[in-house]
Amino acid sequence: MKIQKLSDLFLHTLQDIYYAENHIVKALPKMIKASDSRELSKAFADHLEQTKEHVTRLEQVFKMIDHQPKAAKCPAIDGILDEAKELMDEIKDPDTCDAAMIAAAQAVEHYEITRYGTLVAWANLLDLNAASKVLDRTLKEEHAADSKLTKIAESHLNAEAVA
Amino acid sequence: MKIQKLSDLFLHTLQDIYYAENHIVKALPKMIKASDSRELSKAFADHLEQTKEHVTRLEQVFKMIDHQPKAAKCPAIDGILDEAKELMDEIKDPDTCDAAMIAAAQAVEHYEITRYGTLVAWANLLDLNAASKVLDRTLKEEHAADSKLTKIAESHLNAEAVA
Repeated sequence: MKIQKLSDLFLHTLQDIYYAENHIVKALPKMIKASDSRELSKAFADHLEQTKEHVTRLEQVFKMIDHQPKAAKCPAIDGILDEAKELMDEIKDPDTCDAAMIAAAQAVEHYEITRYGTLVAWANLLDLNAASKVLDRTLKEEHAADSKLTKIAESHLNAEAVA
Repeated sequence: MKIQKLSDLFLHTLQDIYYAENHIVKALPKMIKASDSRELSKAFADHLEQTKEHVTRLEQVFKMIDHQPKAAKCPAIDGILDEAKELMDEIKDPDTCDAAMIAAAQAVEHYEITRYGTLVAWANLLDLNAASKVLDRTLKEEHAADSKLTKIAESHLNAEAVA
């Protein structure tokens, strides 16, 4: 697609995050399985359900702007998820593996936070108020997911990886 | 390298962000040149000087843990920077191009925020107090750079891209 104005950029970024969310849905089951800590495994399982809901919300936003949902390849999320997979395959110590997965999941959250933050700002400028509301709901959930991972890391996981 | 424990993961992540910072140093001059807004161009120029300082600080941290500075390929930052380059080459409208560059720069900042956040937490657990202090200083500067970009975007740039 040709990007000439802000509405084109909005659509392009929507397609980018649609690709990312769909790939996160595919990546999370492996992370749930690889988690040693029950708390972490549950956090990933909860986040999988939430991520499926985020995909549905993006499809609503596509509909609001009269476009079919379409994914645009996003090498950034591919890079983050590939690195997570490599680390999971390589690290044998379960506590160190959990620490690596938390770090990877937080990199994913921050990627989503920046993209949704941008989309909300652009939706407001483009007077797409209903879309802005839907995207902002997801943005808040990504922030909450990131904070939850920080808490899990601080509470015991990282400390166990040092032991 | 084999990753068996948290100190290995710390070193690996240090090499990852060392690669990222060095690539950001290479990418910023093109972004400075492509900026239509003088305010944005100045923000990128200031950030280039700051990023060079971040590279130097990482070299100090490598020294603190008795390792030579080494970069580990980071596909996430490659993905973010490649996409920024593509958008810069494609978008002809200067205000829309500025909006795209701000979004790309904020994705870079968030990648750095998550990595430095993790490194600070791990440095504390590993009793690397001097390293933690140096890394935390950069973390705070990345947060400030992200906020500055939000302000530039909100003040006029994105609004101009709609006009």
